[in-house]
Amino acid sequence: MESLVLDSERVDDLQINGLKIIQHPDKFCFGMDAVLLSGFVKVKEGECLLDMGTGTGIIPILLSAKTKGKHFTGLEIQAESAQMASRSVSYNHLEEKIDIIEGDIKEASKIFGRGQVDVVTSNPPYMTNHHGLKNPNDAKAIARHELMCSLEDLIRETAAVLKPSGRCYFVHRPFRLVEIFTLMKEYKLEPKRMRLVYPFVDKEPNMVLIEGVKGGGSQLTVERPLIVYETQGKYTKDVLDIYNIDKE
Amino acid sequence: MESLVLDSERVDDLQINGLKIIQHPDKFCFGMDAVLLSGFVKVKEGECLLDMGTGTGIIPILLSAKTKGKHFTGLEIQAESAQMASRSVSYNHLEEKIDIIEGDIKEASKIFGRGQVDVVTSNPPYMTNHHGLKNPNDAKAIARHELMCSLEDLIRETAAVLKPSGRCYFVHRPFRLVEIFTLMKEYKLEPKRMRLVYPFVDKEPNMVLIEGVKGGGSQLTVERPLIVYETQGKYTKDVLDIYNIDKE
Repeated sequence: MESLVLDSERVDDLQINGLKIIQHPDKFCFGMDAVLLSGFVKVKEGECLLDMGTGTGIIPILLSAKTKGKHFTGLEIQAESAQMASRSVSYNHLEEKIDIIEGDIKEASKIFGRGQVDVVTSNPPYMTNHHGLKNPNDAKAIARHELMCSLEDLIRETAAVLKPSGRCYFVHRPFRLVEIFTLMKEYKLEPKRMRLVYPFVDKEPNMVLIEGVKGGGSQLTVERPLIVYETQGKYTKDVLDIYNIDKE
Repeated sequence: MESLVLDSERVDDLQINGLKIIQHPDKFCFGMDAVLLSGFVKVKEGECLLDMGTGTGIIPILLSAKTKGKHFTGLEIQAESAQMASRSVSYNHLEEKIDIIEGDIKEASKIFGRGQVDVVTSNPPYMTNHHGLKNPNDAKAIARHELMCSLEDLIRETAAVLKPSGRCYFVHRPFRLVEIFTLMKEYKLEPKRMRLVYPFVDKEPNMVLIEGVKGGGSQLTVERPLIVYETQGKYTKDVLDIYNIDKE
């Protein structure tokens, strides 16, 4: 087993079904965003899912345990990340359920074909602003800034790969909500469900979770707020439930 | 004074600067929506405001007390409501600050001219669905359903009457958020600020407050949640502050 983990990497416990994930402490590590997205996504029995920009592979790995989906694919443009995610899949003996593909989101509909996927997920780069980026080739910069792929690329390719009535799930920053809704409408991915994540009950939200349906009708359900902390350092029950699915 | 109030009407105390409002118990009475909107709107010293579909006149009357705006106009299509709102203005001796105009939102840019107004507010009808309406001529039905004026009419006319960089403020239902954003973008009213109103901290929001700026750049601030009730029947401090401006 240990040969799957490189010297500079570490293995983190995902607290669900004994799953582990390999991460590199100096590179982009998955955040609460990915975990909260995994709690928001609905995958039905037998469905196939594509995670766009999978990074460490956290979303396919978590969803393989949390849902009855048939197959999960993670698409990742950075070779090192894709290889590390692949090793995490092997580490967990999930090779039959999860594929990690090295490739470009902008090419997703060429790689996977049009109208083939039941569910798309993505925790994409949040920032458009490239000012002050010291090294635009840096793995963290690519994960956080739209250097390789814009929001429009992501939404266009999501719409292309999804089956009719297929569903997509994104986590993003609230300041880009108008742009997200506008692009989703443009590519016929109707926003149907939204939940705002507020760090504290009296603070501005710092994440938004969105579900879209390809070709869906116009009506949005805004869900109850997802509040992260009860008090400083103490998670709310909602967040504990998402992190500790085994205890449910 | 009493001659301003008709037999079937009542006079309610607005709890601010001694202001009163005339309402008819069988017709549409203002709700918390209008009050929360009045707490969300920003009117600067010397600005002129137009309230589209003013009903009882609640929004101009409240904002004349809460802000340093120079002049407030309420536009109302229903003659009886417009007359009652006018009598409320007289009752409060606000004739120099507030005008109530009987007229159609769809004609607003003809009535008031293009690019003349600093701020537009509206608490428009929420529902598109006319099914099951017993009497579409009923004053309540007109206030609640888009019988006289669609959301697109409202947004188009708002964009038309506003000055460049003029601001608009709407209260609406969250289920129409995508439509609101899409129409605002279409008519170059950029959504800049949003606050969701949750009846309780663990419930879905039932109102959304939106600020748009004519010709504004793309970046939305989502504010901290506005939670109405602490526990059943007990308002939160946020809501008490909005209702009891005198105590601030």
